[in-house]
Amino acid sequence: MPILNKDMQVCISLSGRPSNIGTRFHNFLYDELGLNFVYKAFSTDDLEGAVRGIRALGFRGCSVSMPFKEAIIPLVDNLEPSALAIESVNTVVNEDGLLTASNTDYEAVAQLLAEHAVDPASRVILRGSGGMAKAVVAAFRGAGFDDLTVLARNEAAGNALAEKYGYSWTAAEPAPDFDVIVNVTPLGMRGADEDTVAFDHEFVDRAAVVFDVVAFPSETPLIAAGRAAGKRLITGAEVIALQAARQFERYTGVALTPDQVARASEFSRAE
Amino acid sequence: MPILNKDMQVCISLSGRPSNIGTRFHNFLYDELGLNFVYKAFSTDDLEGAVRGIRALGFRGCSVSMPFKEAIIPLVDNLEPSALAIESVNTVVNEDGLLTASNTDYEAVAQLLAEHAVDPASRVILRGSGGMAKAVVAAFRGAGFDDLTVLARNEAAGNALAEKYGYSWTAAEPAPDFDVIVNVTPLGMRGADEDTVAFDHEFVDRAAVVFDVVAFPSETPLIAAGRAAGKRLITGAEVIALQAARQFERYTGVALTPDQVARASEFSRAE
Repeated sequence: MPILNKDMQVCISLSGRPSNIGTRFHNFLYDELGLNFVYKAFSTDDLEGAVRGIRALGFRGCSVSMPFKEAIIPLVDNLEPSALAIESVNTVVNEDGLLTASNTDYEAVAQLLAEHAVDPASRVILRGSGGMAKAVVAAFRGAGFDDLTVLARNEAAGNALAEKYGYSWTAAEPAPDFDVIVNVTPLGMRGADEDTVAFDHEFVDRAAVVFDVVAFPSETPLIAAGRAAGKRLITGAEVIALQAARQFERYTGVALTPDQVARASEFSRAE
Repeated sequence: MPILNKDMQVCISLSGRPSNIGTRFHNFLYDELGLNFVYKAFSTDDLEGAVRGIRALGFRGCSVSMPFKEAIIPLVDNLEPSALAIESVNTVVNEDGLLTASNTDYEAVAQLLAEHAVDPASRVILRGSGGMAKAVVAAFRGAGFDDLTVLARNEAAGNALAEKYGYSWTAAEPAPDFDVIVNVTPLGMRGADEDTVAFDHEFVDRAAVVFDVVAFPSETPLIAAGRAAGKRLITGAEVIALQAARQFERYTGVALTPDQVARASEFSRAE
């Protein structure tokens, strides 16, 4: 990587707890592609001031994570359909001072459902009711799925999420009779719940597709169970790489090849 | 230079027309010293928003050039004596949200007068009345020089500058009877005035010390004339390198060796 220069375009991220993933993903590709860009993760306790700074310093783009995905909405100028659909932003692009927000998590899930040829007639069960669950549920709705059950202990959040997209909610685990099982909770994530399988083996055995949004590790107990049972798999690593690739394209105008995404993703996770 | 990481401390510059000098100087040394810092030049049409962004994103430091050196004063929390003396800021350091401003141009000139052992009893003539002239005149005053004439066509600016520091002003070139001659105008600078000698040869012949603040090129016609005549020289390259070194120390806590300053300065100018 060359010494920085004054003309580099700057992209940043804003999140409560920055990781190195985005910084490594984007800078790896800037370097490989010879783009005069630089990317750096930040946190802030003054979101309005940070957005003011993005405008004042002419940053090209900003990736947005928890807890700023909804709070940033009134601070931008335009919302694309992907952000409107879920009232949640993970990407802001600055076009000559005009800030346009989108949600590439939503777009990534929609693209993965298409790429993996998941049948919209499938019966789907989705565990979770947080911010990412909203992106995933909305993507199923956008892809034409009519039969989806939100499984969530939190009645307020679970019911609101299901109703918003015309689906049903349940707190109690239903009979294991679903074609697609989706985990959008921290179950299986590195940490306290890393050994927990998000769905019992009856669900895995019955399903055709196993989809886990957890990205660290991407080989969660649920994915491992699905792999052992020979199911079609969609992993959190795919989601995170694809959403980052779509951010990358918005910031730079460069569409990445699957190989570039795979190598940058591997680099970003290898630390 | 390694791929950027999320924990890097960020320093920026703000100026009306950014150059690559600061960006190359600081990043060269961050790289050589293994400091987890990154530096990038910016311009802005919203200085208040830029400072808000510096606070919100926790940038470590900000170098300030024209036209922001005075306008930034009400936006910081503290002024050091170097900035107070000339009501002009070129360096802002962020200590846990508290912005402290200083002026390393002033400090650099003061240090160079001491290092070159310029006698405070000298008779000094200084051509110029702009922002940098204020830093230089104030540094002579701070170093105990009592006899200094400000030579400037602009009566309002020239007279105000001289009076502020207890010196005299003249619009018409006086008799060439000075020990120290100082150019703080664009005469000799790359561009329209690059062939102009800031003082006639009678001034050069009579002087003991020739001081030119112009840094691009540092070998101005005035410096070349002084060199040919065997005078003691202080160049703009020395000023710019030393003020940058003092900024570097404030941002990073690392005091640079003369050799490090010289190599970073050469690198920054070599583009």
